[in-house]
Amino acid sequence: MTLREDADRIVRASIRAVQPEAAVQRALEGFSCAGRIVLAAIGKAAWPMADAAWRAMGDKICAGIVVTKYHHSRGPIGPLRIFEAGHPLPDENSVRAAREVLRRTEGRTERDCVLFLVSGGGSALFESPLLPLAELEDVTQQLLACGADIVEINTIRKRLSAVKGGRFAMHCAPASVFSVILSDIIGDPLDMIASGPAYPDGSTCRQAQAIAEKYRLRLSDAARACLAQETPKTLPNVTSHVTGSVRALCAAAEQEARELGYSCVLLTDCLCCEAREAGRFLSAVARTHAGTDRPLAFLAGGETVVHLTGHGRGGRNQELALAAAEGLAGLPRAAVFSFGSDGTDGPTDAAGGYVDQDSLAALRTAGTDPGEALRQNDAYPALASIGGLIMTGPTGTNVNDLAVVLLGR
Amino acid sequence: MTLREDADRIVRASIRAVQPEAAVQRALEGFSCAGRIVLAAIGKAAWPMADAAWRAMGDKICAGIVVTKYHHSRGPIGPLRIFEAGHPLPDENSVRAAREVLRRTEGRTERDCVLFLVSGGGSALFESPLLPLAELEDVTQQLLACGADIVEINTIRKRLSAVKGGRFAMHCAPASVFSVILSDIIGDPLDMIASGPAYPDGSTCRQAQAIAEKYRLRLSDAARACLAQETPKTLPNVTSHVTGSVRALCAAAEQEARELGYSCVLLTDCLCCEAREAGRFLSAVARTHAGTDRPLAFLAGGETVVHLTGHGRGGRNQELALAAAEGLAGLPRAAVFSFGSDGTDGPTDAAGGYVDQDSLAALRTAGTDPGEALRQNDAYPALASIGGLIMTGPTGTNVNDLAVVLLGR
Repeated sequence: MTLREDADRIVRASIRAVQPEAAVQRALEGFSCAGRIVLAAIGKAAWPMADAAWRAMGDKICAGIVVTKYHHSRGPIGPLRIFEAGHPLPDENSVRAAREVLRRTEGRTERDCVLFLVSGGGSALFESPLLPLAELEDVTQQLLACGADIVEINTIRKRLSAVKGGRFAMHCAPASVFSVILSDIIGDPLDMIASGPAYPDGSTCRQAQAIAEKYRLRLSDAARACLAQETPKTLPNVTSHVTGSVRALCAAAEQEARELGYSCVLLTDCLCCEAREAGRFLSAVARTHAGTDRPLAFLAGGETVVHLTGHGRGGRNQELALAAAEGLAGLPRAAVFSFGSDGTDGPTDAAGGYVDQDSLAALRTAGTDPGEALRQNDAYPALASIGGLIMTGPTGTNVNDLAVVLLGR
Repeated sequence: MTLREDADRIVRASIRAVQPEAAVQRALEGFSCAGRIVLAAIGKAAWPMADAAWRAMGDKICAGIVVTKYHHSRGPIGPLRIFEAGHPLPDENSVRAAREVLRRTEGRTERDCVLFLVSGGGSALFESPLLPLAELEDVTQQLLACGADIVEINTIRKRLSAVKGGRFAMHCAPASVFSVILSDIIGDPLDMIASGPAYPDGSTCRQAQAIAEKYRLRLSDAARACLAQETPKTLPNVTSHVTGSVRALCAAAEQEARELGYSCVLLTDCLCCEAREAGRFLSAVARTHAGTDRPLAFLAGGETVVHLTGHGRGGRNQELALAAAEGLAGLPRAAVFSFGSDGTDGPTDAAGGYVDQDSLAALRTAGTDPGEALRQNDAYPALASIGGLIMTGPTGTNVNDLAVVLLGR
């Protein structure tokens, strides 16, 4: 097998493992309930997550609500009620959906369970505001305008909501909540994903009030009263299960690479530096270890960034790969590839890019200067000209990216 | 012991191992000679290299010449002849020194040995031009002016010299040449260091002529004739021993870290990306592996680069460390440090920088925004304010840099 074939197998296997369906299936292996199950699925991946849960245990689900973004429902799932709602800003449907979830999860016994399926976007799609929506939006706009960071914004917003910051799980008590989280935030901060409806809130009223003061927020008396209400700090009725995160992406890639005969080194699962520099770093790793007597793979999961300097076509994964081409040139069998688990890297139809020891020569033959292509943020046509694009189509999930160094014998 | 103490021990031990004296001592363990030994030491580290060889086997050395940069001799070494000469451009003393070396190494038998000690700068300091020096300089200027790269420049210059491109070793035959190379170029390209006087030349006359044509060099008939003279492609009388390179720096750091109880992973010994992005990459490695149940160290040798965006004080190693502070914040015992083996990082008196899990908070307490300090290329005062500078003083050697992640229990 060529390195490219190995790369393609690793891409396919790892994306398969973080599909919402597969991720939910794996998570549900650890779930059982003596009483009745209410399903609540929120977020951009709510539909496939709910669909997987319904297939796995539909007979035990007594009621279910699915809340996803507009145009993200793929049709009915048994008797589940499906809502489409606003994202990135909550709208009336976000409120209606949350009301229905709260109604269905009310008055349950401690034998009952809420199967809570959470994915990115849940913060906007699932909302029960303690203030009028317009006022909520005004506070958010004030915070954004004065440069508050995401932690500060969430500290305020959790207190203006009846479901955020662990309050949804508190509402479900005494029923137990089995929370399955498809994480799209590096490091899996469970109090951040969907604003943590079923996770204890680490922030305090004092912090919220300090933020209001720091930015001199214009707040109504009702809003000020909300900031003084504490969020739950412990939630003994909740079990959280993170699935399909970038860690799972790395783990699945590692397993596939092992099956292909590679010894694996996980470098990181929270990479977040400039894409092209990560490519250079990884090509330096390749240069040092190339010519190994056993196949070796180095893995780096996370999400790199691109600072635009040109007007070309590309994405962070394509830039990472293209930037590695120079360092790989002339090595014995060595490749670097990088892809986004959502299958769409930047505003392109490619998932990412692949380069190996022959790519630099091929680029030059094709008349491409890789340095100039990077300056123009134009990695897509450069990689396309040498067959270096990784194409998967949209995958229906998003758990960040994975970059891999492969060193053959 | 604290991580900082471990870091300081690793810095000291690894710099000690790549001192010219220690490096030459180690290399000479593999050297023996049945006949008479002529010593020739060229380059910026020629003096300490020759001094170490003289101490180790002065009684067996029948003649010796040391050629180093002006003000780099530290006094007489036994009966060795010491020259100081021009750098980065060769001058008459470079030519005189080379003439003396050629005279002393002429007419030797195959039982005799030339102990050839090579360090950076040797290309200018040791020269026997086949053209007048002024003409040689003109050709070099033409090549620089038209943007020729270092490989192209060397391909031409080797052919205009009686000692470069393996020709010095050919001159020494049938005596054997034991070449000890203190490498300051990443990847140890032996045909590049000092222009490879004792290493087979990989370039050809055809390439040299193509370069002359590509850049339309103005060449005399004598120069054209030189380009048609082939350089040696094999040198059976030469043994090359690279010592004190960045690899030795990494190996010594690894050994010291092991003795301190760390399990070690060598990531690369040829890192060459943007300093601050390397720092971010390494802090992401730390985040993933922090909280380990056994102490862990990741090592990355090489030489990063800095693109200036401000007018502050700092150096590439200090920037790398400072950029890692944010990613380390709040981790259990985790540090990133980086230092230049020459002890002077950028135009500062620090060798590099050290940060750990507490550095970001300390920077903020000191009123420093690390992001802004990086934008101003002002890492030195930022690190100084939190005791994060690594100070060694000038070390007398230069084999690139080393960056290390330390993760404590």
